[in-house]
Amino acid sequence: MARLNDLFTSELEVINIGLESFHQSLTEAGGQSIHVKWEPPAGVDTDLNQKLTRLARHQDQIQTANQEAADRITGATPLWTDVIEASDVIPEMQDERLLLHAGPPIDWEAMSGPQRGAVLGAALYEEWASDPESAEAMAAQGEIQFAPAHHYRAVGPMAGVISPSMPLVVVENSAHGNQAYSNLNEGLGKVLRFGAYSEEVLERLHWMKTILAPILREAVTELEGINLKLIVAKALQMGDETHNRNVAATSLIARTLLPALVKVDASKEDLVSVAQYLEVNDHFFLNFSMAAAKAAADAAAGIPWSTIVTAMARNGTEFGIRVSGLDDLWLTCPAPEVEGLYFPGYTQEDANPDIGDSTICETVGLGGFAMAAAPAITEFVGGTPAEALTYTREMYEITIKRNSAYTLPTLGFQGTPTGIDCLQVLDTGIYPVINTGIAHKEPGVGQVGAGVTRAPQACFVKAAEAFVDRYSE
Amino acid sequence: MARLNDLFTSELEVINIGLESFHQSLTEAGGQSIHVKWEPPAGVDTDLNQKLTRLARHQDQIQTANQEAADRITGATPLWTDVIEASDVIPEMQDERLLLHAGPPIDWEAMSGPQRGAVLGAALYEEWASDPESAEAMAAQGEIQFAPAHHYRAVGPMAGVISPSMPLVVVENSAHGNQAYSNLNEGLGKVLRFGAYSEEVLERLHWMKTILAPILREAVTELEGINLKLIVAKALQMGDETHNRNVAATSLIARTLLPALVKVDASKEDLVSVAQYLEVNDHFFLNFSMAAAKAAADAAAGIPWSTIVTAMARNGTEFGIRVSGLDDLWLTCPAPEVEGLYFPGYTQEDANPDIGDSTICETVGLGGFAMAAAPAITEFVGGTPAEALTYTREMYEITIKRNSAYTLPTLGFQGTPTGIDCLQVLDTGIYPVINTGIAHKEPGVGQVGAGVTRAPQACFVKAAEAFVDRYSE
Repeated sequence: MARLNDLFTSELEVINIGLESFHQSLTEAGGQSIHVKWEPPAGVDTDLNQKLTRLARHQDQIQTANQEAADRITGATPLWTDVIEASDVIPEMQDERLLLHAGPPIDWEAMSGPQRGAVLGAALYEEWASDPESAEAMAAQGEIQFAPAHHYRAVGPMAGVISPSMPLVVVENSAHGNQAYSNLNEGLGKVLRFGAYSEEVLERLHWMKTILAPILREAVTELEGINLKLIVAKALQMGDETHNRNVAATSLIARTLLPALVKVDASKEDLVSVAQYLEVNDHFFLNFSMAAAKAAADAAAGIPWSTIVTAMARNGTEFGIRVSGLDDLWLTCPAPEVEGLYFPGYTQEDANPDIGDSTICETVGLGGFAMAAAPAITEFVGGTPAEALTYTREMYEITIKRNSAYTLPTLGFQGTPTGIDCLQVLDTGIYPVINTGIAHKEPGVGQVGAGVTRAPQACFVKAAEAFVDRYSE
Repeated sequence: MARLNDLFTSELEVINIGLESFHQSLTEAGGQSIHVKWEPPAGVDTDLNQKLTRLARHQDQIQTANQEAADRITGATPLWTDVIEASDVIPEMQDERLLLHAGPPIDWEAMSGPQRGAVLGAALYEEWASDPESAEAMAAQGEIQFAPAHHYRAVGPMAGVISPSMPLVVVENSAHGNQAYSNLNEGLGKVLRFGAYSEEVLERLHWMKTILAPILREAVTELEGINLKLIVAKALQMGDETHNRNVAATSLIARTLLPALVKVDASKEDLVSVAQYLEVNDHFFLNFSMAAAKAAADAAAGIPWSTIVTAMARNGTEFGIRVSGLDDLWLTCPAPEVEGLYFPGYTQEDANPDIGDSTICETVGLGGFAMAAAPAITEFVGGTPAEALTYTREMYEITIKRNSAYTLPTLGFQGTPTGIDCLQVLDTGIYPVINTGIAHKEPGVGQVGAGVTRAPQACFVKAAEAFVDRYSE
C-alpha cells in the first residue's frame, strides 16, 4: 500500500505510448504527459516475430554482447592526432581511381543528384578530367571506382566524397586500438559535400589541401593531439548536439588550437586565412564529431550475438545500417524524406532524400539522440525546444545505456542514450531520430535546408531477419 | 464563456505565490505549478506604504519613465573598441594615489579582508609601497584615496580594484553615446580580485599590462571593434548566463579575435602567452560582459520618475543599489552571505560576505536573471537545472520588459527579464537573484566557492523612502 500511496503524493510524469487521445486527456486536465508516437510494428510479419521469440532463449547471450558493444562505444577515447592525405592511409587509392562516398554501396547509375555532383567535383579536383562532361563520361563508363567511406574506417558528411589527395583528420581510439578518419569541413554555401563543383568549390578544396591541412597538422602535432571526447562533453553543456549544431564545439576546438596556431611556422597571410576559416565556419567540428563517433562505433562492431547498431548511413538513394553481430553486412532500404525548414526560395520539392554519413553521430548517441542538449537547434531544424527534450527521452527507449561522459543539463545531467538495440527498435516501433542537413536534388546547387527524420523501419526488419538467419539453430 | 472554456481545453501552467500548500496540492494532483516564495513585505512600514500608495497617482509618469529606462537598457549597442590605461580615461588618477573599488563608497577601516588584500596588491603593483606592511600603513594613514569604480563609468569583479596603470577595456554604447570600462580578467587561482597579492599575482598583472593589453589592443583595433551584444546573445544559447559562466562567450570572443591575433606584430613567444591565457581562462569574457552591462545600465540612469534599478554592487561590507530617478544616490545595507558550493577544504566559515561589481550583469537581466540559459551552472553554484528555470521565471515578476535580443531557449525563446522595478520588488517581496563567486574573508587567500544570493530587502526599502522623499509633493 505504501508504494501505491506514493502515486498520490509524488509529482506524476506520464509517458503515453500509442493512442494520442490518452495524452490529450491528461494534458487537458493539466497533467504532465509525454506522448510517444507508436504503432504496432506492422512491417514485422508473424513468421519473423515467431523466430525472434525463439531467439529469446539466448537473451542472456545477447544482453552480454550488447553490454560489451555499448561499453566500447562509451569507453572510446577519441583523440585527434593528425591530418594526412587520404591515399596515405588508404593504399587502394594509390593504384586506382577510387572515390569514397557516404552511405552503403552504390554505383553511378543509382546515385542521386548531389552524390553525382560531388563525384564530378572530385574528378575535377583530382584532375582526372578537365570539365564536368568528361568527368561524367568517365564515371558512366566505369573508369572511376566507388566504395563506401565506411569500408575504409572513414566517414564524410552529405555526399561524403573523399578523393585520394584530400586531407583527412586522423582520430585514434586508444581504448580499443583503432583509428577513424573524416575529411575537413568546407563551410556553408556552394560546397562539394552538397554536390556543388564550381570553380570556387575547387579553389577552396585546393586551399584546404595546400594551406589549411599543413597548418592544422603542425598545430595538432605541437599539442600532441586534442581530446575530442572532452570537447563533445563540454559542447553538450553548451547547446550543441555535435551533428547539426557545432558552434560551441567549433569555438572550443578553435580555442584549444589557438596557442599552437600562433606558433605555426607559416606566413601571416596563410595563418590569417586559416584563422578566418575557423572564425566563420560554425560546422568545422562536425567532421571531428563524426570521426570520433566512427572510432567509437567501429570499436563496437563484430561482436557475436550483439544486436547493437554500429552504423547508420545514407548515400542519398538508400539508407543503410550495420549491426555489431552481423559484422560488415549492410541492411538497406530507400532513403527517407526529411521534414524540416527550408532556406528562402526552396521547398520540399527541391529536396534530395536523406544523405550522408553524419548519422554516425546518432549511432553513438549524439545528434538527434542528444537533442535535449540543443534546444536552440529547433530554430534551424524546426519544432520547439520542448520537442527537443522529447526526442531524447524517446531514444532512451531503444538504447541500452546512458553515456556518463556525455550528460544533458536539461534532463538533470542524465547521460546521452547510447547503444541502439535494433530489436528494441522493432519492439517499440520507435525509430532513431536524426538531425540532418537537406541537399538540393540537383547536382551543383548545395544545401537548401535542415530538418529531422527517422531511420526507416525496413532496415531494422532486414537486420532482424539477417540476425535470425545467422544465429538461429 | 468561450474564454472560460479555454481553461479546460488548454494546458494549464500555474504560478503559485505565497502559501506553498496550494502549490503542493496542485503538484500532488499531477498538475504543473511553479512556486514563488513570497511573504508580505514586513520591512516596509505602514507609513512608507501609505506614501507609496499616494505616489500611485503618478503611475503613468512612473510607467513612462520606466519604459524609457528599460528601453535604453535593451537598446544598448555595446562594442568593445579599445584597451587603454586607466589613468588615460580617468584623469583624477594622474594627480593622486586613487584606487577604484567595487561596490558603494567605503573607507579603509570598513573594508573586508579581500578588499584590503586587493588594495595592498594594487599599491605594490603601482610601486607606491615596497612591501605589504608599508602599503597597509599608507592606506591606514589616508595616503591612498578610494572611490567606487561606478563613479568613473567602470566596473570590476569581486574586490574590483583598479589602479592608475592597469589596462581597461573600453566599451562604446553608440545607441546612447556613452562609454564604460572594466579591467581585464586575471583567471582563477591566486588573483588580486579575490584579495591575493603574492609575487605571482603581481607578475601576472605586470604581464597583463605589458604583453596582453597591447596585443589585445592591436587585435581589436584591426577588427574595428567587437560586437559584445552579439556574443552575449549567442552565449545565452550556449549555456552561459555571462556572469558566473562565461565559457561559451569566452570561446566565441577568442574565436572572433583569432584572425586579428595571428596578424598582430609581436614575437611568437608573446603571442603564444596571450593565446595560452585565452585558452585556459574560461572567465575572460566576464569583464566584457560587465562593461557591456555597465554601458547599458548607465544609459538608463538619471531619468526623473523612473524606479528602475541602474546599479547593484557590493564592496564586501555593504550592498548598494542605485535607481534611475535617484541619479547617483547609493542605497546601502550590509552585504548578504552567499549560499553555495565550496572548493575542497573550505566552508561557509571561510566566506566573505557578497562582494563585487559583477551584479551589474543581473542589473541588466543577465547572470542570475538569465539562469534559465545556463542549467549546467548549477553544478558550480548549487541547486538543480529545474531551479535555474525557476529563478528566471521569478525575475519576470520584478522586471518590466523582456529583452528580445537576449533569448532563452529553455523558456521557448522568451527574452531575458530586464528593467528591475524597485517598487515591484517591494510589492512582490521577490528579491533579485544573483550568481556570484565567493571570496575568502582573509586577504591573500582567493576564491573559495560560488553560489547564489539575493539583493537585500533593506536597499529597496531605502530606495522607496528616498523616492518618496524626492517625488512626493
